[in-house]
Amino acid sequence: MSDTTAVPTARAVRRWFVPDAYIPPRSTDPEVSHESICVLNAGPEPAVFTVTAYFADREPAQSGPITIAGRRAVHLRTDVPDALGGLQLERGVPYGLEIASTSALQLQYSRLDTAQPAYSLMTALLDGAPHHTLQG
Amino acid sequence: MSDTTAVPTARAVRRWFVPDAYIPPRSTDPEVSHESICVLNAGPEPAVFTVTAYFADREPAQSGPITIAGRRAVHLRTDVPDALGGLQLERGVPYGLEIASTSALQLQYSRLDTAQPAYSLMTALLDGAPHHTLQG
Amino acid sequence: MSDTTAVPTARAVRRWFVPDAYIPPRSTDPEVSHESICVLNAGPEPAVFTVTAYFADREPAQSGPITIAGRRAVHLRTDVPDALGGLQLERGVPYGLEIASTSALQLQYSRLDTAQPAYSLMTALLDGAPHHTLQG
Amino acid sequence: MSDTTAVPTARAVRRWFVPDAYIPPRSTDPEVSHESICVLNAGPEPAVFTVTAYFADREPAQSGPITIAGRRAVHLRTDVPDALGGLQLERGVPYGLEIASTSALQLQYSRLDTAQPAYSLMTALLDGAPHHTLQG
Repeated sequence: MSDTTAVPTARAVRRWFVPDAYIPPRSTDPEVSHESICVLNAGPEPAVFTVTAYFADREPAQSGPITIAGRRAVHLRTDVPDALGGLQLERGVPYGLEIASTSALQLQYSRLDTAQPAYSLMTALLDGAPHHTLQG
Repeated sequence: MSDTTAVPTARAVRRWFVPDAYIPPRSTDPEVSHESICVLNAGPEPAVFTVTAYFADREPAQSGPITIAGRRAVHLRTDVPDALGGLQLERGVPYGLEIASTSALQLQYSRLDTAQPAYSLMTALLDGAPHHTLQG
Repeated sequence: MSDTTAVPTARAVRRWFVPDAYIPPRSTDPEVSHESICVLNAGPEPAVFTVTAYFADREPAQSGPITIAGRRAVHLRTDVPDALGGLQLERGVPYGLEIASTSALQLQYSRLDTAQPAYSLMTALLDGAPHHTLQG
Repeated sequence: MSDTTAVPTARAVRRWFVPDAYIPPRSTDPEVSHESICVLNAGPEPAVFTVTAYFADREPAQSGPITIAGRRAVHLRTDVPDALGGLQLERGVPYGLEIASTSALQLQYSRLDTAQPAYSLMTALLDGAPHHTLQG
């Protein structure tokens, strides 16, 4: 019954943040500079999440819902709108990312910059503190 | 009234720390070596924060207040005093950073070192545990 | 008696996650590109853990039990099955890692990419929140 | 009186860990490959900490006490025993680090590898959960 009741129930919405997001404008062969949002769903059920981009001088842009199957891990490139729920992001624009889900996903952000003929990597594990909110 | 009352109220001051701060002294084209403090304000209201630099052998230096609008993300370079509330920092001097705010900001620190003709990146998400203090 | 009792007891199983795992396919001399799972056991007793790999399009694969002696630190390469409880991982395949143990280990993940004639490093400390589950 | 009483009192000992510690064996000019333990003491009082190195195949080695003044930040190189309370560490040996203190320090670990003629950086903020123990 609890899944179909019309009475709003408190759901813990987890939110993960990447304040330093940036798709490097330059690349050298053989790899294109890119960022990845890496999502691991250790639970048995599919999970849904959204990605929101925050900018310095305009309103945020939000993706459509993205689904990850249970017991799977995916590396989503931020320069591939089809992988990111339709979210279109520009190279060379500093921004910030928020990932939101009601599921207990594991997330990590990484960037590969190949502007110079040598790779440069950076990574950060994201800590998704639950924020309790009312949802229908 | 609450903003102008003379009775001190308990405010949770969040403090984020970057013990390993350093503006690399050398650079190669086309990018200047730099650090960024990346701030994401997911809330609807503007937020104010300060930046304090700690050194090995002298008293800390503190910026003036810096404001970020609601629902915005900014990448602030530590070598640009105008972006950092007037705080002036020297290249090539190891130091540490503290960011303080009463708002629930999201913060990340990154460094790009271009001393060699290849970029090198490092990054860290900052964890801002609230420290409850009395403020007027 | 507690080890052999048939009554299930609550044990805190810690789980650490690395959503962005990847063994780079290319290398240049003198170092082979690799990942390391670095484990520090500060306690006096040996500890046992397992490693599970999650993929985008197939079921997870789990290692056999791996033991680390008390008061020791080891750096385990993910491209060496003998070091990883027999777990075989392919180069060039994006995946995610889970490490699980009932002991309070300290973990860190690092990757060295030598695809270009310059090293690139990234690292992340893993946060192992305990998940209480019933175990026999 | 509380400072001089002979009755043991419960003190919260904070412990920070770096499972992936390593002083790279090779370097190229102009920078020597090195690691740094970066310590920020935001409080007004001096603080004392120790550094312990854990190895794969022998007993841990511990430094003498290291003092940092109040409101100061220092970057300590692990290849300089005088900076590290006399602790002697070898290049090219994988190990793990523990930093312990009864003070609420802020810590970060970074490594610069200059084996190739291009720098490579990695960093991690350390999370020092307090472990309550009895001390005299």
